[in-house]
Formats: sequence, structure tokens, C-alpha cells
Amino acid sequence: MTAWVPLGFPDIRPGADLGATVLEVLARNDLRPQPGDVLVLAQKVVSKAEGAVVQLAEVTPTARAEQLAREAEKDSRLCQVILAESRQILRIRPGLIIAEHRLGFICANAGVDFSNVGLGTDWVTLLPRDPDQSASRLRERIAQAHGVEVAVIINDTHGRPWREGAVGVAIGIAGLEPIYSYIGQEDRYGYVLHSSIESVADELAAAASLLQGQAAEGTPLVVIRGARFTPGGGRTRLLREPERDMFR
Amino acid sequence: MTAWVPLGFPDIRPGADLGATVLEVLARNDLRPQPGDVLVLAQKVVSKAEGAVVQLAEVTPTARAEQLAREAEKDSRLCQVILAESRQILRIRPGLIIAEHRLGFICANAGVDFSNVGLGTDWVTLLPRDPDQSASRLRERIAQAHGVEVAVIINDTHGRPWREGAVGVAIGIAGLEPIYSYIGQEDRYGYVLHSSIESVADELAAAASLLQGQAAEGTPLVVIRGARFTPGGGRTRLLREPERDMFR
Repeated sequence: MTAWVPLGFPDIRPGADLGATVLEVLARNDLRPQPGDVLVLAQKVVSKAEGAVVQLAEVTPTARAEQLAREAEKDSRLCQVILAESRQILRIRPGLIIAEHRLGFICANAGVDFSNVGLGTDWVTLLPRDPDQSASRLRERIAQAHGVEVAVIINDTHGRPWREGAVGVAIGIAGLEPIYSYIGQEDRYGYVLHSSIESVADELAAAASLLQGQAAEGTPLVVIRGARFTPGGGRTRLLREPERDMFR
Repeated sequence: MTAWVPLGFPDIRPGADLGATVLEVLARNDLRPQPGDVLVLAQKVVSKAEGAVVQLAEVTPTARAEQLAREAEKDSRLCQVILAESRQILRIRPGLIIAEHRLGFICANAGVDFSNVGLGTDWVTLLPRDPDQSASRLRERIAQAHGVEVAVIINDTHGRPWREGAVGVAIGIAGLEPIYSYIGQEDRYGYVLHSSIESVADELAAAASLLQGQAAEGTPLVVIRGARFTPGGGRTRLLREPERDMFR
């Protein structure tokens, strides 16, 4: 398995044609997509291209946002944006809000983020409106330009219970079954596996995250070749149903 | 970044010299370790080589294990082994026990597992007694044989709250700082990051897990070259202190 980080990814502004940008960057790096490649693109550039950005100066906080801001010791306008992006707030402590995003992801600040926005100090990015669709559009664009079927993952880094540090996870998926089930397969000694399922999409997202960086690297695109995955799938399906989640 | 899966990894029995085995497998695959390589080895072969295996026929369940077995609808001898490996049991439902392992990992069955044991149907593997030390020993063995400093990760696949599927995580680490902190770095636009920390070791473990498989693949070793990580570190330090963990 090889993962490349094409260089020279340009600054992305709202309204940018992300598909064209990815094609240009691949071409400039002499990287011709092959069938079975996985393209992993950082959420931040997708959000920016799609205009999923908000200027806090334009936001008027509600009383609920003011209350959240006091509990979390954060800007009340930021809290208003977080509330608007959330189904529910799960945990609060000074400096930290863990929310269930309207798409089901459970992460800090419902994915609302100040870093690498590039529009001014009071601008934040939101998660893309429909990251599976964002992934799907990029996948179609590659198919049109190169005539090959690749998989596309939009990734973000999320913190986790129990373990320190954030890791890359898949928040949008196209052309790949996110889950690989070993259930019913025999192990090396004939024992039939009955519970092993693996989140291939999240593992690919984590592998890409190793190479993307989160500061000034300017490398939001990773191309992974030689990974084993099942084509197809499409929608994320990586979210545990609340009733099956013992840690809510 | 490139990840190789050396082929021909032999069956591992209790008492096997794992260091010698890894060196042989690398040589057979013409893979000469380079400084900065990360070797990722699946927990299962480490446990087996170190004799971290138990035959259930030899286990006498306590009353507590009998009670746990009723609640979880599992073998009471298995439950006895799980209890012996655990600091505490966090969640129980039919078919599933989530435990805090004596080393702090929170995972299904405290890491006690029936798959790929190869000693008989009533044998299970435990996690290695001290996986950081297991990693360290392999690292020293590579240094002795090849005169190069590599990093070593022992990985396992753990389920997660909120998200479907298990992913590879690092349970033993040598020669690498498990966490990379971006705090204080500037993003592409001069914004100073104040909360981004990434679990590089877990992302490497996840990338390797993509290639190892969990059934009959017989490929527990992965060599990753070209990953960006900070040498040093050593002990795992990936476990969130309970008082900082809002999801206990």
C-alpha cells in the first residue's frame, strides 16, 4: 500500500471548483488515478469550497447560546453556531463542548472550527452540508476525467473517549464499503469468526491523516493505492445507532 | 508513505522467538529495515509467543464470573479469565462485555480472544503482559541485527463508542512519540492552534490494520516507511486519565 501527498494544493476560497483543483493538483504531481485508488480529502477544503463558513460578527446568540457560552467559557456567537449545527449537546466543560452533529458525528464543537479558514479571525468552518455527496461528486469528476473508478473519503480528525489524541475518521464516503465484516470467515486454524467487523473507511481516513497535517502543511489531499477494500457502498453508515451505543 | 506486508509469517506457538521470526520474515521478503521505519506487529502473535494463552478447561469460575456469565450470556470460565484481566467491567449486555483491562485499555472482553489461537478450541489469548516492553524488545533486536533505529508498535483492533466497526489501535509502543501536538503552531493563515493533538501511534496502528486482516491472512507484520513521526517516547501514554474522560 502506498500513500502519496500531492504538493502544491492551492488556497481554497468559497466557491472554488474543488473537482478541477484536485484534477490539476494530481496532474501537476504526475499522479494519474488508477482503478481502486482511494482519494482522501480533508474536510476543511471541502467546507471552504462549498461555502460552509460563517463570520461570527454576523451571528446573534440566543439565550441558550449565552448559557452554553458561560458553561463552556467560549464565545457566545461560536456557541450559537455550534447549537445550530447540533442535534444535541452531550458533554460540556470549560473549554470543551462535545456535540452530536446534525449528521450524527459526535465530536468537539460539532465540527465548527477556527483553524485554516483564511477569511479573517472571526470566521469559522462548518462540516460540509452532505459530505457523502461531496465525496460522490469528486468521485464522478475523477471518473469523467480519467475514466477510472476510485473511492473517495472526506476525512476529519475527531477526539475519542478513553484514548488521548484525535485520529482521522471518515465523514463522507463514495465508492467504498465503509465496513468490512469478517463474520463467518474462518481464521488460520478453522475457527469461525463471529464478531469481527472492521471500519476500513476510518482506517483509511486515519492513514491519510498521518500525511495531511493540521497546521500550515497545505496538503489536504492524499492518494492511497493498494489498499484492500470492497467497492460499492456509498453512504457513510459508520454511525452507531444510539440504542446500540452503550456509552451515550 | 509505503506500507509492506511481508509474506510467509510462520505459525507462532508459545515460546517462539518472535524477534528471530521477524528478522527471518523481513530477510525472506528482501525488506531491510531503514532508520525511521515503523514495524507494526499484531497483538495476537506477540501474546502467543509470550505464552499469554489460557485453556478454559483449566479455569474454575468464581461466583462473580458465574454472575457475569449469566448477564453476558457467555461461558463462565471465559468470564473468569476476563475478570482476571480487568480492573473493572464497564458495560454488559448479552454477547458483549466492555472492560477496562489491567493496563487501562477499554475494549471488548478485556482483550481475551478465541480467534487465531491455534492451540485447540478452548484456548484463548490474553493481551501481552507488558506490550510496551514487547515492542521495546523487538526494537532492540532490529537495532542489534541491522544497526538501525526503527519504531515498533504492537497493535490490536478495538471497537469504539458512537462509530461502527473496530479499528487498529496501538497497545504497545517503542521508539516513537505516540502523540503529536500542534498546539502553538500556526496554521496556513497565521492562526495559532490551541487544541489540536493527534494520536500518530493509533493512526499508524490503523493503517497497518488495513493490511493485516483478522481471519486467515497470516500477515501480522507490517512495515511502514516514510511516515512522519517524532522518535523517542516509548511508553504508551495514549490512555485518557479517568478524571479527564467525560464518557466513563
